[in-house]
Amino acid sequence: MAFLKVIPLEEALKVVLSFELPVKVEEVDLANALGRIVAEDVYSPTDVPPFDRATVDGYAVRAEDTFMASEASPVKLKVVGEVHAGEVPSIELGKGETVYISTGAMLPKNADAVIQFEDVERVNDEIIIQKPAYPGLGVMKKGADIEKGKLLIKKGTKLTFKETALLSAVGIHKVRVFKRPRVAVISTGNEVVLPGQELKPGQIYDINGRAITDAVNELGGEGIFIGIAQDNRDSLKELIERAIEVGDLIILSGGASGGMRDLTASVIEELGEVKVHGIAIQPGKPTIIGIVKGKPIFGLPGYPTSCLTNFTLLIAPLLLKSLGREGKVKKVKAKLKHKVFSVKGRRQFLPVKLEGNIAVPILKGSGAVTSFIDADGFIEIPENVESLDEGEEVEVILFSF
Amino acid sequence: MAFLKVIPLEEALKVVLSFELPVKVEEVDLANALGRIVAEDVYSPTDVPPFDRATVDGYAVRAEDTFMASEASPVKLKVVGEVHAGEVPSIELGKGETVYISTGAMLPKNADAVIQFEDVERVNDEIIIQKPAYPGLGVMKKGADIEKGKLLIKKGTKLTFKETALLSAVGIHKVRVFKRPRVAVISTGNEVVLPGQELKPGQIYDINGRAITDAVNELGGEGIFIGIAQDNRDSLKELIERAIEVGDLIILSGGASGGMRDLTASVIEELGEVKVHGIAIQPGKPTIIGIVKGKPIFGLPGYPTSCLTNFTLLIAPLLLKSLGREGKVKKVKAKLKHKVFSVKGRRQFLPVKLEGNIAVPILKGSGAVTSFIDADGFIEIPENVESLDEGEEVEVILFSF
Repeated sequence: MAFLKVIPLEEALKVVLSFELPVKVEEVDLANALGRIVAEDVYSPTDVPPFDRATVDGYAVRAEDTFMASEASPVKLKVVGEVHAGEVPSIELGKGETVYISTGAMLPKNADAVIQFEDVERVNDEIIIQKPAYPGLGVMKKGADIEKGKLLIKKGTKLTFKETALLSAVGIHKVRVFKRPRVAVISTGNEVVLPGQELKPGQIYDINGRAITDAVNELGGEGIFIGIAQDNRDSLKELIERAIEVGDLIILSGGASGGMRDLTASVIEELGEVKVHGIAIQPGKPTIIGIVKGKPIFGLPGYPTSCLTNFTLLIAPLLLKSLGREGKVKKVKAKLKHKVFSVKGRRQFLPVKLEGNIAVPILKGSGAVTSFIDADGFIEIPENVESLDEGEEVEVILFSF
Repeated sequence: MAFLKVIPLEEALKVVLSFELPVKVEEVDLANALGRIVAEDVYSPTDVPPFDRATVDGYAVRAEDTFMASEASPVKLKVVGEVHAGEVPSIELGKGETVYISTGAMLPKNADAVIQFEDVERVNDEIIIQKPAYPGLGVMKKGADIEKGKLLIKKGTKLTFKETALLSAVGIHKVRVFKRPRVAVISTGNEVVLPGQELKPGQIYDINGRAITDAVNELGGEGIFIGIAQDNRDSLKELIERAIEVGDLIILSGGASGGMRDLTASVIEELGEVKVHGIAIQPGKPTIIGIVKGKPIFGLPGYPTSCLTNFTLLIAPLLLKSLGREGKVKKVKAKLKHKVFSVKGRRQFLPVKLEGNIAVPILKGSGAVTSFIDADGFIEIPENVESLDEGEEVEVILFSF
């Protein structure tokens, strides 16, 4: 068993990304697709618009008939009919002819321009034109907006109302999306109780269970909270076995004490294999990475900020990969509000709050719930660095997916 | 009937914000609260932590017992027991006594510091201390993280995993959230068909129905797509009546042609009252605002970009207000990529794409679907302005809620 043999973050991440989560795809109706993640590149099956289309209310003409029009010598065209949106024009324009056309309607054969009705004078069944129309005036050509075969949406895209509208525009009403990977979440600790239960002396409410479950949900997975394991082998084993049944991936958090961390590692080793126990980062040194019955299992630190930092560093990349969203951990550049210190030889991650493009370090300590609640993300202080200066440019990894 | 009597945007907005949507509140379990909007300020019912808590594994001491400790003259304390997380310590520390304590455990009476076990030497039932401990070392005091009665979450907050974690931390498992206002959506036009149906010559697929429905869903409402009305009085009336039955607010879009817009206004006037028909903005001039059976009803332009711009300008503020989120339309500052022109006397809104803090105007024309799909939002070119310069600072109203 790899027992607290610390390895670099990059090596740990290599182990994590070597895991394969089952990729399952389902087809959903466009009406239920919002927020889902597209499982394949989507190409347009059609031209938009699918025909040359009037973009104004007016008169469809053969532009060449109007080339000689001027105020001094207007051109007259004969109105031979009308065509409305949704209709197929039965008329073919002859020389000197025009039809009334409404916005959105299909241009009749031979017409290549539409003059707005405000720009002509209508007298009985004739219109009088004082200015030439160029071919394409008042017309959106077939495929001008979206060409048939165009790549519309890339695999891994999270569907917002803009993408569902785009799919609607090309007539797609069913879309293949990734099934949400199922992530089973366990909290641990004798002192930890569920919200809604009575708090006895010495007890605290569970935070990580809800935090991880909902972070998974936001990321596009399905977080399933299993429960709280007591600080003993039987309870841990029972909950891990239940988690293995329902989850594609299992996340434990806590216990806070050294003895409890060892117990978690030992139970995972009994049920499967511990691949990593110890990462050379702060917080996160005692993080456990293992595999049980082919399913990745993680033991994260108990302090909420440490727990969520390690979730973001180690687990989010795997979940995103399984959703076709490699490298989509969100990062922004910012300038540090004030100098921060670290210990040489310690690779540290520090929560920060963003105020515009200023990163304000949160120095309450990882034990405080509020430090992760207030944080928009965290920055890295590398191993060989003892401090970062005020105004220094930093990369903020966001607590947001 | 206020028939195409154009009024300024601010006046139209005043009419809109005078409408009251029914405010309904429901209580949901914390497990189902992600993404919902909190209906009242939430205060902490408890202290976090609820007791003085060890933040390390080590020895709980009376700090004053250690004040004289030095390498030259170490202090010895007697280990009189141990206390683990979740337990209520039965021991009261006497002078010269200590107990082993694990992270997260409650401090025994009289203890006010915890020394990490790595920092002492243990010999049988004694520990040897070479350095003074200050009161508070290794301890998180009761309420230090969150004080009982503290405002945790403001009314109108959209719950992310950080807020659900925070509620969990204070033991709240049920939360009062706004019911999503029901918005009934109707598309109009003889040429418009639903995605998934066969496209006959002259027809196009509906875009606005899906776009508005899902924009409402993203904003925190419940979008309900009613269907596509044909360009005639009976069809329009039938769908509006159906929409009134299910929706708290009704949105129509299209038809593209002038005649169709007049028909919509006339049908709304028959069923209720047209309050506004015509706003001095481009796009959006023919927008209709009315009320039918006490329910606000909007007629938006047919072109998708125009439609969504007017949705964002006029309807989003009302929906946000009803969710306790006044003024939460999202705006960012950016610099214009290149010069853009407008017509003097025309108050124009122009879609832009954001590249970092650069706003790139999208000049495909409002008829193109792709112009709103590509856009992150839009900028305003005021009435008395004929152009905005390259590099000029602009405010971008985001297509995102």
